[in-house]
Amino acid sequence: MPSHSEPTFPAIKALIFDVFGTLVDWRTSVAREVERLLVPRGIRLDWLAFADDWRAQYQPAMEAVRAGTIPFCKLDHLHRRNLDVVLAARALEGIDESTRRELTLAWHRLDAWPDVAEGLAALRTRFLLAPCSNGNISLMVDLARRNGLVWDAILGAEVARDYKPKPEVYLSAAAAFDLAPGEVMMVAAHSSDLQAAAACGLATCFVARPDEYGVGLGEAEPEGPVDISVAHLHELAQRLGCTPTRA
Amino acid sequence: MPSHSEPTFPAIKALIFDVFGTLVDWRTSVAREVERLLVPRGIRLDWLAFADDWRAQYQPAMEAVRAGTIPFCKLDHLHRRNLDVVLAARALEGIDESTRRELTLAWHRLDAWPDVAEGLAALRTRFLLAPCSNGNISLMVDLARRNGLVWDAILGAEVARDYKPKPEVYLSAAAAFDLAPGEVMMVAAHSSDLQAAAACGLATCFVARPDEYGVGLGEAEPEGPVDISVAHLHELAQRLGCTPTRA
Repeated sequence: MPSHSEPTFPAIKALIFDVFGTLVDWRTSVAREVERLLVPRGIRLDWLAFADDWRAQYQPAMEAVRAGTIPFCKLDHLHRRNLDVVLAARALEGIDESTRRELTLAWHRLDAWPDVAEGLAALRTRFLLAPCSNGNISLMVDLARRNGLVWDAILGAEVARDYKPKPEVYLSAAAAFDLAPGEVMMVAAHSSDLQAAAACGLATCFVARPDEYGVGLGEAEPEGPVDISVAHLHELAQRLGCTPTRA
Repeated sequence: MPSHSEPTFPAIKALIFDVFGTLVDWRTSVAREVERLLVPRGIRLDWLAFADDWRAQYQPAMEAVRAGTIPFCKLDHLHRRNLDVVLAARALEGIDESTRRELTLAWHRLDAWPDVAEGLAALRTRFLLAPCSNGNISLMVDLARRNGLVWDAILGAEVARDYKPKPEVYLSAAAAFDLAPGEVMMVAAHSSDLQAAAACGLATCFVARPDEYGVGLGEAEPEGPVDISVAHLHELAQRLGCTPTRA
């Protein structure tokens, strides 16, 4: 339980959120979608391993954009290119174009962790809310519709035209809300994301998602200093003085 | 009443909206806000004329961005510069900086026309919805919060980094949703906005706001061909087959 002396972050006006892993369970959702699309084509795989391998291509693909080697493109395009790599590694080059397009949309069909819809609705009673994800706008829109999330705006990589952890992504989110960095709190399940946000002057909240990469294989504790660390968004809402509400 | 043979626009997946004049009554709202801020300073003016004069600076200011004479900046900055012109024309150079900042935020405190919140909620049961306004993201966010509007994303000038009627603003809104222009309908009370959207391949809906510039001084009928013309958003929702809902 928070003590009465805990700071209540009176300066904070907006919360911005990492999405993959922090708000949605990409791993079991991608595995489910890939299975749904490939089983009718007679394919049997370790679906979770497929999801893990696909996700493993994520940071290297974005690094080419961050380094300026390739121009900014939507994460959907990177997901598609990475999919080709993962299919080729399994000798599945025969998968047709239209199936590849459908597979790429697996990332638009991720399920939120159970606390997210109600937690965000409670937080929205006191704060402006936006995703600050590397996912593109349409991907964020589809996840919001699927999971009943209400955002004030969709911010993040596509608006900044670069990928986290580049400072511009965090700073452009604050600027879009006309807020100083210190008036915005970044919420994420990944310490590296929070460290990058803190370096830009944002407040930070760690949310534990200990099962993100499989049971016990996510971050259970922040790896460095953060302003607040919570087990789920209900706890964050409570500690920030928000009224519970139905999503 | 629509006939049964009226097309139901099966290709349309998203509706994007002009905001000033189409969804919100900028004129009486700005007049009210300016009065609220200047009366305590002993100033008496024709508040509606002040709003009209401020709005009259709107197109010329954006034209400098559209022509590339000045780099893109948020509409808030243009509103502020235009305010200085309107104050100077009334010999009100003595108004201090902090009051000028507050006055500029009058544009964040506009009231929606009475049909808008419920009309959008009904339309959102079948379509993705976003503003496609020249107003900046924070301005759209504040108008949405004030009037209970729920958007899927905030699109428009700040995301496109140019101002309507430049094609990129309409096209970038469709692209953000991963839609072809023909899958998106632009909704506006201004024929010029709709003509520009149609030239980009978008479908068009005219909403009559005959009192936008004062009673009888708005567009009551579209000045050219549009795909659909309605008196208010309830009618649009009905004609597009949406279920009425509470906002």
